[in-house]
Amino acid sequence: MASPLTLRALGEDAVVKGLVNLLPTGGDDVLRGPGDDCAAVRIPGSLQVQLLKADSVVEGIHFESHEDLERVGWKAVCRAISDIAAMGGIPQHALITIAADPNVPWVRLEGLYAGVAKAARHYNVSVVGGETGRTSGPLVCSVFLTGVVTERDLVSRGGGRPGDVLFVTGLLGGSLASGKHLDFEPRLKEGQWLAEHHFPSAMMDLSDGLAADAPRLARESRCGLEIEPDKLPHTPGCSWQQAMCDGEDFELLFAVPSERVESLKREWEKAFPKVPLTKVGCLSEPERGYSPREIFTKGGYDHFQ
Amino acid sequence: MASPLTLRALGEDAVVKGLVNLLPTGGDDVLRGPGDDCAAVRIPGSLQVQLLKADSVVEGIHFESHEDLERVGWKAVCRAISDIAAMGGIPQHALITIAADPNVPWVRLEGLYAGVAKAARHYNVSVVGGETGRTSGPLVCSVFLTGVVTERDLVSRGGGRPGDVLFVTGLLGGSLASGKHLDFEPRLKEGQWLAEHHFPSAMMDLSDGLAADAPRLARESRCGLEIEPDKLPHTPGCSWQQAMCDGEDFELLFAVPSERVESLKREWEKAFPKVPLTKVGCLSEPERGYSPREIFTKGGYDHFQ
Repeated sequence: MASPLTLRALGEDAVVKGLVNLLPTGGDDVLRGPGDDCAAVRIPGSLQVQLLKADSVVEGIHFESHEDLERVGWKAVCRAISDIAAMGGIPQHALITIAADPNVPWVRLEGLYAGVAKAARHYNVSVVGGETGRTSGPLVCSVFLTGVVTERDLVSRGGGRPGDVLFVTGLLGGSLASGKHLDFEPRLKEGQWLAEHHFPSAMMDLSDGLAADAPRLARESRCGLEIEPDKLPHTPGCSWQQAMCDGEDFELLFAVPSERVESLKREWEKAFPKVPLTKVGCLSEPERGYSPREIFTKGGYDHFQ
Repeated sequence: MASPLTLRALGEDAVVKGLVNLLPTGGDDVLRGPGDDCAAVRIPGSLQVQLLKADSVVEGIHFESHEDLERVGWKAVCRAISDIAAMGGIPQHALITIAADPNVPWVRLEGLYAGVAKAARHYNVSVVGGETGRTSGPLVCSVFLTGVVTERDLVSRGGGRPGDVLFVTGLLGGSLASGKHLDFEPRLKEGQWLAEHHFPSAMMDLSDGLAADAPRLARESRCGLEIEPDKLPHTPGCSWQQAMCDGEDFELLFAVPSERVESLKREWEKAFPKVPLTKVGCLSEPERGYSPREIFTKGGYDHFQ
């Protein structure tokens, strides 16, 4: 008898695509559904759009058991804020859900929530609810976050055009090894500034590594992709391969029409003099595919492989 | 050395209270925060209020591994809809998050999402996003659901007064044994009808059993509680103890000022002739505590005990 097809065999992108196909995702009020950093839905009678994001951290995957749970709580909230940032939005309300083994010491959960609270206060998010539940498995902390953005400022992954120049903020690579992934500050101000000034034609945050994420932006924009690996802004001590594939960077990747690139560079330098902004490639005609191809066919993080 | 205090030793209500105390839960726009069936936040410039709910089902806790995952998917969505119903609301948008072992067969996840899709279509909910993640532990499916309700129709757990009469819809007990918990229909129309007609002073849905849930409603309303165990509308074949403690009923429990009780009974009979409505007790002065006391000190479901 043939063994059944597993999630591992299919891979994350195929699993997600297959699941999304089953679901009723539409509606007149749905501006962006599955496939973007956040969902975006119209608020009746308002010029603002609501952003919705769900994101989880799992013990043994996103953090190790020995790690300081206060930092893990910070990370759990900031991961979701990073997705709101990638749509140009302002975070508002969160629900925090935990599944824990009943034998977990109270002091550990208290630490986790201290980190959640720290991030929520820092980014002016109200935690208005959530749930505690039991599991016999690893600790899972899920964050549901709402946000708002003016409809005309909304940026998605899908607006890029061939010829648009790709930029990333900050430095890439080594986030897990250095511990940055537990203490990072989401690019919230940068994302809002970019959206308000209408520079990006498409934007997303980098969580699975440029090699996995950049093709997602290109695909949603129906474009090909050219990355110049030797141009990547890598963390000191990291190779360009690490900058491409390590993941957990939580920097912004965005596309800018070529005629706006000089203006962006000038204004960015004034607004964020301390935050590196680096051209890493461009979007191309769709038939050109992803280049360099060998990286994009095997790099970056797949949750099921 | 003393062993550390565990979640099990503290119990669910103390864990939740301790965690909520750590969090920034307030804000001018927050009408109901942690402690109710849903959070309720104002929508700027609108007479409507947004409801936010997060709810998870965990393999081995809320469903067994051998169970039909399509029914589990239905249950996962309907549990959250039941909480929207308890606030008198209309469900709108959902995010579905899954944590699964990579060795799970694709066909199982496909079944789960078929059930999610069936419930979403049935209750006119758009699934606008979510996330797939990996775990080495049991399957966890989290549902994040938004809803709306007109602010003047919003019902919470906290509006009851001493003397208000307590009602439950439907029949209680035996839900896990009979499989009803996997196929139930949330009392959405009933909850909306009750809220629109302003009958309940307080309302919640019953998920952990009357013995665990009724004291929560009483506590939020700063009231005592008297339940008449022999009056409980029990499922055929169930004892009143089972009706009190089994849990997973997903019926509505609500308090009605005594002067409105006759009117409620008359109108309910016309609106929902097939749905039992039963008086099960009343709210009392807070110093009276919970009666009968022996049930409320040991009954119902605690997630950590």
